Amino acid sequence: MFRNCRQSFRLLHTSRSIKGSQKALTPLTNEKITNIKRSDKFKQLEQSDVDYFRTVLTSNNIVHDETSNPENSTMTPYNTDFFNLHRGASKLCLFPTETSQVSKILKYCNDQKLAVVPQGGNTGVSGGQNPLFDEIIVNMSKMNKIRSFNDISGIAVVDAGVVLESLDNYVAPLGYTVPLDLGAKGSCQLGGNVSTNAGGLRLMKFGSLHGSVLGLEVVLPDGTVMDNLSTLRKDNTGYDLKQLFIGAEGTLGLITGVSIMTPRKPTSVNIAMLALESFDDVQKAFVMAKEDLSEILSGFEFWDRESMELVKRVMLTDKDFPIEANTKFYALLETQGSRQEHDQEKIDTYLTRLMETNVAQDGVMAQDEKQTTALWQWRERIPEAIVQSGTAMTYDVAMDVQLLYKLVEDVKQHYSERGLLDKVYKNVIGFGHVGDGNLHIMANIPDHDYSVQKDMDKFVYDWTIKHNGSITAEHGIGVAKVNYMTRCKTDVQIRLMQSIKNAIDPNGIMNPYKVVPGVL
Amino acid sequence: MFRNCRQSFRLLHTSRSIKGSQKALTPLTNEKITNIKRSDKFKQLEQSDVDYFRTVLTSNNIVHDETSNPENSTMTPYNTDFFNLHRGASKLCLFPTETSQVSKILKYCNDQKLAVVPQGGNTGVSGGQNPLFDEIIVNMSKMNKIRSFNDISGIAVVDAGVVLESLDNYVAPLGYTVPLDLGAKGSCQLGGNVSTNAGGLRLMKFGSLHGSVLGLEVVLPDGTVMDNLSTLRKDNTGYDLKQLFIGAEGTLGLITGVSIMTPRKPTSVNIAMLALESFDDVQKAFVMAKEDLSEILSGFEFWDRESMELVKRVMLTDKDFPIEANTKFYALLETQGSRQEHDQEKIDTYLTRLMETNVAQDGVMAQDEKQTTALWQWRERIPEAIVQSGTAMTYDVAMDVQLLYKLVEDVKQHYSERGLLDKVYKNVIGFGHVGDGNLHIMANIPDHDYSVQKDMDKFVYDWTIKHNGSITAEHGIGVAKVNYMTRCKTDVQIRLMQSIKNAIDPNGIMNPYKVVPGVL
Repeated sequence: MFRNCRQSFRLLHTSRSIKGSQKALTPLTNEKITNIKRSDKFKQLEQSDVDYFRTVLTSNNIVHDETSNPENSTMTPYNTDFFNLHRGASKLCLFPTETSQVSKILKYCNDQKLAVVPQGGNTGVSGGQNPLFDEIIVNMSKMNKIRSFNDISGIAVVDAGVVLESLDNYVAPLGYTVPLDLGAKGSCQLGGNVSTNAGGLRLMKFGSLHGSVLGLEVVLPDGTVMDNLSTLRKDNTGYDLKQLFIGAEGTLGLITGVSIMTPRKPTSVNIAMLALESFDDVQKAFVMAKEDLSEILSGFEFWDRESMELVKRVMLTDKDFPIEANTKFYALLETQGSRQEHDQEKIDTYLTRLMETNVAQDGVMAQDEKQTTALWQWRERIPEAIVQSGTAMTYDVAMDVQLLYKLVEDVKQHYSERGLLDKVYKNVIGFGHVGDGNLHIMANIPDHDYSVQKDMDKFVYDWTIKHNGSITAEHGIGVAKVNYMTRCKTDVQIRLMQSIKNAIDPNGIMNPYKVVPGVL
Repeated sequence: MFRNCRQSFRLLHTSRSIKGSQKALTPLTNEKITNIKRSDKFKQLEQSDVDYFRTVLTSNNIVHDETSNPENSTMTPYNTDFFNLHRGASKLCLFPTETSQVSKILKYCNDQKLAVVPQGGNTGVSGGQNPLFDEIIVNMSKMNKIRSFNDISGIAVVDAGVVLESLDNYVAPLGYTVPLDLGAKGSCQLGGNVSTNAGGLRLMKFGSLHGSVLGLEVVLPDGTVMDNLSTLRKDNTGYDLKQLFIGAEGTLGLITGVSIMTPRKPTSVNIAMLALESFDDVQKAFVMAKEDLSEILSGFEFWDRESMELVKRVMLTDKDFPIEANTKFYALLETQGSRQEHDQEKIDTYLTRLMETNVAQDGVMAQDEKQTTALWQWRERIPEAIVQSGTAMTYDVAMDVQLLYKLVEDVKQHYSERGLLDKVYKNVIGFGHVGDGNLHIMANIPDHDYSVQKDMDKFVYDWTIKHNGSITAEHGIGVAKVNYMTRCKTDVQIRLMQSIKNAIDPNGIMNPYKVVPGVL
């Protein structure tokens, strides 16, 4: 079932499924975010440029389409994101198969002042991987080799275009697992994961990519290749350059290779789902899990009743839901350990305490792999369910855990007072990673009504900034949040980011208009 | 015993103990590393400068000494490092007590082109914290407040001058522990730890500071304060600026505050010492520990017989050593867990397998805290023992674990063939962190014979670079290894580091002559 879930998620990203969907394409991003104008410093694509790229790549690795109607364009799958919230008007998508080709492409673009958007699995939700105007897309899907894997150290060196799940499938029989897991794992690519500093479901146990990534190969904007593919766990020789590119969303260079440390695959994995009456109880259950499960606790996710009902309505059924108690919140916790009997004892202690203290109202524990995957899908399919229900907004904020769900309540109250809840803003749901203080709010809104999007953006971001939170915990700034950067960062921080951007990409060709404001 | 050990280590860093030591001061660093010349762009200190600093700091927070004989100078403790391998000739050491003072100091120095060296606990071993010439020292010891600690999230926000052990003592009663542990913990400071990206004994379990540090407050070279003291576990709003300063050794700005995540204090800690016949067996014992101890394995250290004999000779006795087997290697492993009976079972399984497979020749397990500290000191006191035996060289390399000890053997063979082993190069020992592929080699050499130092530097670094290792895993480049940077990094990497340095510190006042070559 888990497999099926991921498989279907992957299909949604292919051009076929986007073309096949009944949704009309969203308006161009630059028609919605009107304060961003195309910069005159960038050249428009000419036939001579395409001719040059044809000397670098074989013809099957170039998509070039001047079609004026995007409904019929072969470029549309690359110009548009999965949520159909962002759309650009690029006419050229390049698919390099090796680093030297990326180097030639960027050198040429830098010399010619052609703007470039790096793209991985196109699963990002902030529009970072899609053009705003006519930027050339460099899609990494065809650079997808596992370059090496050391089965003693567990260190993998891979092309940036390797799909996350493919790497996991590769290392699993050798006793390892990737330290990153997220719903889009069947489509997202390592290079994109690193560029957005993806968080996901296992961050609590394995930490962020700033720790797991040991080295990077990056093509700098002038085409120079920075080979920093270290396989050393520790290396303090000068500035840790790779860190700059982790989370830079392709604005400083194009990641072509990744060296990543993979932990041992756990021999004992357990999953439990809990029914909880309040968000206060969710927090209590989390604190108790840290105490009782400690070193084996690998994930602690939660979602609200509305999320569960949406999944039921759209893709599963009442009888699939394993818990009878109809409580306001549900949580899913995962343990990873090396000895089943020890883990089971710890979990028994924990679950007993939860029930005895009345913190949880009900709970189930998976007894086999089939049940494990069945439980996980109630959390993993939430984003898919809301996308299937219409145009969906998605938010990704971080803050003190105590405040986490208050935001969802305040959003609902705000729109309820204005008579807009369930009419304009439908299916307002909250879920996320309790362990990391990371909440996702989503809602369905009328198709292509950007003022509705913008209003909710403003409410959510204002609220988050006021409460000292982050307006993006793991999804990144992209273009969706760039107008909020000057509010959530100090002038000093913005200036420092600008200095770095200007020092490394003086022509500003790499993923322009995004992440750092005021550099064009 | 552990306490005593750390206490004595701390005392060695006070001015009293340095003045009281019988060792003659090492020659000035700039007389040894002769290719580095004082840059004319920096102004010499004038009385008017000192007068300015007296308007910023109270007189008890300024040490100013123009004494020409360093043996009598109150500046000597700050000009010289613990190992007595580096020495500068600064005449002014400033002790700010708050961030605004640091800001004024750097702004003035930047305007006046006065070079600055940031200094923490002065425990670094690469000379990064000592001047080469007359740079002004800004010592952070008096900025030592714990600003806040959240006992739900475990996140501490501290002044940069807080001593590592002080923070650990503060959080321990609240159920937390610092994720960093090293021999110098009684003296080293958080700001210095972050600036050198210190690794230490627990990196294997808790990862590097690039993951544990959540935010920094940094005074930039022009005096601007970058307040990035986030307490969020996840935050993807733009470039992760703090990462730049972690491991930059004070060349990009001066860290004044640190936000750090502290993990739960384990309720069950176990220590075992093993006797092993070969380095191959050390590796086997490590792989088996990863398999059997998995999520509770928190440290795996090793040392050779020569290290053990040195500690015996200098500070402990034969009867203190808990293992009878006189093998070539010893290892110490630590587990941290939440349930003693589970941990004990895992350890029993592991130790039984070690003995049955004849991988270990003997082993002991600590039964109480006293024994735990007694075992640890055989590893922790090695550096102290060799320093007490004379002028000591220290190396800190990282490479594939398989190669780790081969370097020690080759160093010995090299000097043995030349008739220099045990005559010029005495007590050549190897020890380190197996789990991180990190070896420390040390040796005693004749006092103040720089050609002898330089010869060993060359051999160790050449060997390491040839075997794709890192010439510094955790100690940093400082001034000691700056001449090797162009050999262990590519031109592209060096140029990128130079761009960053020039963008952030255009006048080059921050810790000049160090880390990044070619910027003055």
